[in-house]
Amino acid sequence: MRTTTQAADRRARAALSRLMEPSDWVGLALVAAVGALDGLRIATGEVKPGPELQAELYRLLNREQSRSQQGMLSEALQRWHPRIKDLDPDRDLATIERLGGAVLVPGDESWPVALADLELAEPLCLWSRGQHSNGIPPAERTVALVGSRDSTNYGNSATGDLAAGLTQKGYCVASGGAYGIDAQAHRSALAAAEPGHWPATVAIMACGLDRYYPAGNEELLRTVASRGLLLSELPPGAAPTRWRFLQRNRLIAALAGTTVVVEARWRSGALNTAHHAAGLGRPVGAVPGSIYSANSAGTHRLLRDGSAVCVTDAAEVAELAGPLDAGAAAEQQAPLSDHDGLSVEDLLLLDALPVRQGTTVEKLSAVAGLPMRTVLAGLGRLEIMSLAQQDSSGWRRQRRG
Amino acid sequence: MRTTTQAADRRARAALSRLMEPSDWVGLALVAAVGALDGLRIATGEVKPGPELQAELYRLLNREQSRSQQGMLSEALQRWHPRIKDLDPDRDLATIERLGGAVLVPGDESWPVALADLELAEPLCLWSRGQHSNGIPPAERTVALVGSRDSTNYGNSATGDLAAGLTQKGYCVASGGAYGIDAQAHRSALAAAEPGHWPATVAIMACGLDRYYPAGNEELLRTVASRGLLLSELPPGAAPTRWRFLQRNRLIAALAGTTVVVEARWRSGALNTAHHAAGLGRPVGAVPGSIYSANSAGTHRLLRDGSAVCVTDAAEVAELAGPLDAGAAAEQQAPLSDHDGLSVEDLLLLDALPVRQGTTVEKLSAVAGLPMRTVLAGLGRLEIMSLAQQDSSGWRRQRRG
Repeated sequence: MRTTTQAADRRARAALSRLMEPSDWVGLALVAAVGALDGLRIATGEVKPGPELQAELYRLLNREQSRSQQGMLSEALQRWHPRIKDLDPDRDLATIERLGGAVLVPGDESWPVALADLELAEPLCLWSRGQHSNGIPPAERTVALVGSRDSTNYGNSATGDLAAGLTQKGYCVASGGAYGIDAQAHRSALAAAEPGHWPATVAIMACGLDRYYPAGNEELLRTVASRGLLLSELPPGAAPTRWRFLQRNRLIAALAGTTVVVEARWRSGALNTAHHAAGLGRPVGAVPGSIYSANSAGTHRLLRDGSAVCVTDAAEVAELAGPLDAGAAAEQQAPLSDHDGLSVEDLLLLDALPVRQGTTVEKLSAVAGLPMRTVLAGLGRLEIMSLAQQDSSGWRRQRRG
Repeated sequence: MRTTTQAADRRARAALSRLMEPSDWVGLALVAAVGALDGLRIATGEVKPGPELQAELYRLLNREQSRSQQGMLSEALQRWHPRIKDLDPDRDLATIERLGGAVLVPGDESWPVALADLELAEPLCLWSRGQHSNGIPPAERTVALVGSRDSTNYGNSATGDLAAGLTQKGYCVASGGAYGIDAQAHRSALAAAEPGHWPATVAIMACGLDRYYPAGNEELLRTVASRGLLLSELPPGAAPTRWRFLQRNRLIAALAGTTVVVEARWRSGALNTAHHAAGLGRPVGAVPGSIYSANSAGTHRLLRDGSAVCVTDAAEVAELAGPLDAGAAAEQQAPLSDHDGLSVEDLLLLDALPVRQGTTVEKLSAVAGLPMRTVLAGLGRLEIMSLAQQDSSGWRRQRRG
């Protein structure tokens, strides 16, 4: 009985995902109010909505005070109407099964809990293809690497190094399957993943999963579908549109615990993803680049306005994401300099020590401007640290190492 | 009478600047407590300090609780003692005059008010050479450009563009006269300055102004001395030491209202200048660069830890510094895209419009998922915006421009 209900809910959500555009607020509020099954009946005109529903939708959305409540739902019904004739959820479910995929719905064990942060904008369902037997990698283990389609060699190198490094550290690399930075992120994650450590990468698409878009990425996306995961909130057959790309970006931001923009122009879809991530309170990183590269103008913009943290390697991204295990955190260590940890007086003394010919304690006292007693004590300390040495000519500098 | 006192104070401070290292806290507290003239008498042993002075120094420094008060001053006296025999302020004043320079002291009209932010660490005097007839440019009009001595071509280009742009905007470029970024900053400011708009640039040195250090910058520093300003808190003849470089950095930070690090390694003196500036509450900028360049590791570190704001051109530095006049502020404007300012519904409609062959309103309604009424109204709006057009085949996209 429970299984039957679940199957009916899944089927209804599959149908609704064709009827409604992503982030259709009235549609999402309708499902939140009455559930997917009754929502579908109302959306398709099978059941007439009562006045209590209008009030409930108004309450859920509570931001449409200017429009009449009646207008909001009836406009939505008009909007959905032209697509009712194309509804065939059984066909769509058969299509995704034939592709070795499935449709996930809230309540499924494999439904990503991180999507709940989207609140009302949580997708109705997720169409999925690929290595989903272990579920979708959790957000805290997923880093999105996003950026321009027309990436530079610099951007590709940076993406490749970050994706490989993050994969080796055990993170899953998510991106949008587009040309440029996205493709490089998927490709490098696939290359760096140990065989069997799947899904190696997750591509979150703005179209149905029966098509490979863009066409030039077909081979890459086929590999992602076999060794990684393809995800979309759109049913098979759905074409990508600008609206769907923008809404897809919110899914990337929500499925990844951390989003890093590697390269982006001043105005770029990747910045939209970064803003979604920031809106969800997730950490955002940006890779710096040349001030002469238009493809870094967007990342610099994020750094400048404080929306993103500067990240230059996989370790810094991992630090932003939070470590997967505490032992793995290795702080960047710079080589020690001669003068590290010296007191001011010992530093003055070190500066005063000649490099070649030795000198006397009296002369050191005058040159360094330190009392004799301090010079003598300091020379002792510097000698222990192998920074000063004494020979027949007097005291002089000793080079470390 | 007043003039005589001023001359005596100037002479005493000139002498003290040879006796004491920069930021000698006990020496600075001594001068703060009793003035430069009596301070010099005490420092040279001519006058014995009374017990009230010890208490006053203790109060001024209030951080040396572990050492006895007696010890603090007697240690300082020992430290100064070896240099007393070299004191000859009249000779030093004659030297700086022969070089066309002067020694400035607090109270002079041309004494930079911004140095007061250093509190007790305000220098005893400033030795000066060059175009100082108009005084030292005020901090709000001065930007420090600092960075690695071993700069890259990228760093030199960035420095050159920033220095030229800032000079053209009316800012004075300050730096430390060193190789690399410093030299490029001075050079480009000199090149960009209108004749007569002097000082074109200010070099703040860690040695006496009778010497050109480093030797390879002699010609540049001679030009700065003729068309710009050379400043130092050290008297003629003083050699540069690491301590003096570190203390010089505080003067750069204090004399410039804004400090920008163009290139810096992970550990670099330029970061020390940036930290001084941050400590003074002055804005700090950092120029991003390649993640593969060791010379940008330090600037990225500043960006990453939030000590600096990302700056990519002179306009952004000027924004950080605050405009010299309100009218000059020109916001960066990106070209408009087709979809800027469209409502969600018009965006959906624009996406649905075919580019080549026209289509019907009914088809647009189904493809866009919008009611007919909305499609018709939207087409009207898009037509007005020259984004949609109608011909015999129906409605299609019209490209802008």
